[in-house]
Amino acid sequence: MDPRTDAERPRIVIIGGGFGGLTVAQKLHKAETKITLIDRRNHHLFQPLLYQVATAALSPAQIAQPIRFIFRDQKNVTVILDEVTGVEGNHVVTRDAGLIPFDFLVVAAGASHAYFGRDDWKDVAPGLKSLEDATNIRRRILDAFERAEIARTDEEREALLTFCIVGGGPTGVEMAGSIVELAFRTLKAEFRNIDTTRSRVILIEAGPRILASMPEKLSSKAQQGLERLGVIVRTGSAVTECRNDRIELGTEHIPCRTIIWAAGVKAAPVGGWLGAKQDRAGRVVVEPDLSIAGQPNVFVIGDNAAVFTADGSPVPGIAAAAKQQGKFVAKKIAARLAGKPESTDPFRYINQGNLATIGRSEAVADLGRIKLWGTIAWFFWGFVHIFFLIDFRNRISVSVDWLWSYLTFGRGARLITHPAPPEAPDIP
Amino acid sequence: MDPRTDAERPRIVIIGGGFGGLTVAQKLHKAETKITLIDRRNHHLFQPLLYQVATAALSPAQIAQPIRFIFRDQKNVTVILDEVTGVEGNHVVTRDAGLIPFDFLVVAAGASHAYFGRDDWKDVAPGLKSLEDATNIRRRILDAFERAEIARTDEEREALLTFCIVGGGPTGVEMAGSIVELAFRTLKAEFRNIDTTRSRVILIEAGPRILASMPEKLSSKAQQGLERLGVIVRTGSAVTECRNDRIELGTEHIPCRTIIWAAGVKAAPVGGWLGAKQDRAGRVVVEPDLSIAGQPNVFVIGDNAAVFTADGSPVPGIAAAAKQQGKFVAKKIAARLAGKPESTDPFRYINQGNLATIGRSEAVADLGRIKLWGTIAWFFWGFVHIFFLIDFRNRISVSVDWLWSYLTFGRGARLITHPAPPEAPDIP
Repeated sequence: MDPRTDAERPRIVIIGGGFGGLTVAQKLHKAETKITLIDRRNHHLFQPLLYQVATAALSPAQIAQPIRFIFRDQKNVTVILDEVTGVEGNHVVTRDAGLIPFDFLVVAAGASHAYFGRDDWKDVAPGLKSLEDATNIRRRILDAFERAEIARTDEEREALLTFCIVGGGPTGVEMAGSIVELAFRTLKAEFRNIDTTRSRVILIEAGPRILASMPEKLSSKAQQGLERLGVIVRTGSAVTECRNDRIELGTEHIPCRTIIWAAGVKAAPVGGWLGAKQDRAGRVVVEPDLSIAGQPNVFVIGDNAAVFTADGSPVPGIAAAAKQQGKFVAKKIAARLAGKPESTDPFRYINQGNLATIGRSEAVADLGRIKLWGTIAWFFWGFVHIFFLIDFRNRISVSVDWLWSYLTFGRGARLITHPAPPEAPDIP
Repeated sequence: MDPRTDAERPRIVIIGGGFGGLTVAQKLHKAETKITLIDRRNHHLFQPLLYQVATAALSPAQIAQPIRFIFRDQKNVTVILDEVTGVEGNHVVTRDAGLIPFDFLVVAAGASHAYFGRDDWKDVAPGLKSLEDATNIRRRILDAFERAEIARTDEEREALLTFCIVGGGPTGVEMAGSIVELAFRTLKAEFRNIDTTRSRVILIEAGPRILASMPEKLSSKAQQGLERLGVIVRTGSAVTECRNDRIELGTEHIPCRTIIWAAGVKAAPVGGWLGAKQDRAGRVVVEPDLSIAGQPNVFVIGDNAAVFTADGSPVPGIAAAAKQQGKFVAKKIAARLAGKPESTDPFRYINQGNLATIGRSEAVADLGRIKLWGTIAWFFWGFVHIFFLIDFRNRISVSVDWLWSYLTFGRGARLITHPAPPEAPDIP
């Protein structure tokens, strides 16, 4: 038993309850230390399935878990719901809880959408990072069909039934495949004045191919898969304007009412808090051990860190990478706390494979030498994702919902909910 | 086969997709008619379980079903998501879809909260009628614990851990029992700076007893049950003021940050639309056949109608009553459409029993001569509610969640989600 009081134990502060921050705290469960995990949300989010909430297949609670709940039995962790506003010396500054002192700091604050200098597109082309984003996009998509049902002109109806997704990365591909399934299958029998199968779902990618991080063969398999499902794939098309009533690709104007932004992310502004060097995407340039220059007790991981693989390509902003970094940092901290010699090995990313789902029975998987596509890749993807969902209960519940919707083409969470009225006051 | 086109068929318009409106449309599934069901929500809500969403036990999608989905196979029904703004002659006026003509009109628009002339209490003491209300209340309750965890004074902490529920009807009783379970059991292990079992949950009722519509014996069993769970029951206490930081019962001021309003409902303003006589609660005074005076083709049912039982007491505003009225009206309309002689019997409410749940293993049931309380009433209540949940899938999913939370005291939907930022534009 450690005779020290909480106040005497080394203090570890973790900013962010995503995959990276969570892993650090969990791997330190045996450490005689006081860990404070700060997040501005009360829940850890299983982001890889967020698009399923945005397209009404899953409910928010199925892919999120209160962070407190995850740590209820790990007594060295205190969870704080608060907004971090900066770092001053060895204190984290928060909006409500004031200054929080640390001996070790791990920054894992994640990323948000990047509009490449066109932040005015944010409202008409919302992105997908939080549960609120997902229910907002869900509302817009479902509402477009509702409005089409009572539209008075063909032009309006057609624009309402046109869905544009900007960005051909995994999120864009998943959203396009899901919206097509919603329109062509799930909603087919439910409207009387419109034919939802005449919807147009357009995936717009500026680069020459979708899923650019995959081998070319899988990009092309993915594009064929999407087109088979009914998605219109437009590669080499840069968006020049997003408006309430249209999207512009240079001189081409496509009338539409729903635009979804899946084109880019930027890191949370942690570089500014730390006074550290950043790259163009706002990621902090870190040392080989993921600490920042001159501050060996401050680590930056996940989407906030600019880390490169042995061949010089950036480590991807995915859950597996954040977890590996979290584990690496937890090990370093544990060794220092225990006064043991630290390994001087740098962090090395191990590529465990690259997966993207496209739609019903369509996915692609790059597992190094093995490449999969079609139904077999889709089953592999489903298995991996259910397996990694954080707790057992969610695994059951998501499995039941997936099985159900696979058999029936139904979608269980098709709710249009509106935000609270603007007059609702802030909680005192 | 009916040779008439849609335009030639008699047109039935139903306002409201609650239990009443839904029943009318479903019972007319064989009628050669064009039914238009208008609701300003896209979903039918199983309101009896709404408090479970407000206290994080169930997810919104588990107690709601898209109205379109319910009628996907009933081709004589067209569903419209729109806001009704009035009735002019034989047209319903809507905000977006314009004028909708009818030969028969059924008004089943439901009720909202009543603040008895103190509408300024609405923001600090939100009520529980919609999914948005429920997620709003859920956010406030969970947020109070979060803020208590980082509170800097004892006074603030104590006020944050005080939850006042105004109104001792079924909703108030259910909310009080649920919040106590959340505080005393579910959250117990998860905080480090506060002891959630020191929360105070106060149920405030102006009348002499809670569950006034039940026999006195069951009221007293219910109060004992609540007190056993840890609820402070204050009967004979009228609320005189609701503020951000306190509730006032005459000269007594109770510092608190969470007030939930379960004290009264008022009917939607349909009397005004119809130019019909209304009672004090805004319900339309109807003929014995539920039509309105001088307009035999216009019916008002559910929470919108002032209907009385044989002994002169009002028919309660519950699902069973709305369904019985819906069935009665559907039968009348079907007979007239078929040119068959109509029964001249008035609507007669059949009391199928009165149930209220209090908390874990605590409920009361008034089944006429049989009265139940405690665990047996609770199992009876659970069975009845799962049975009536609209579709099979929800039944499975709710059963799994209930079983899980019964065994573990866990609550699966503990998400604090915020409304969309105020700058988000209306959908074009």
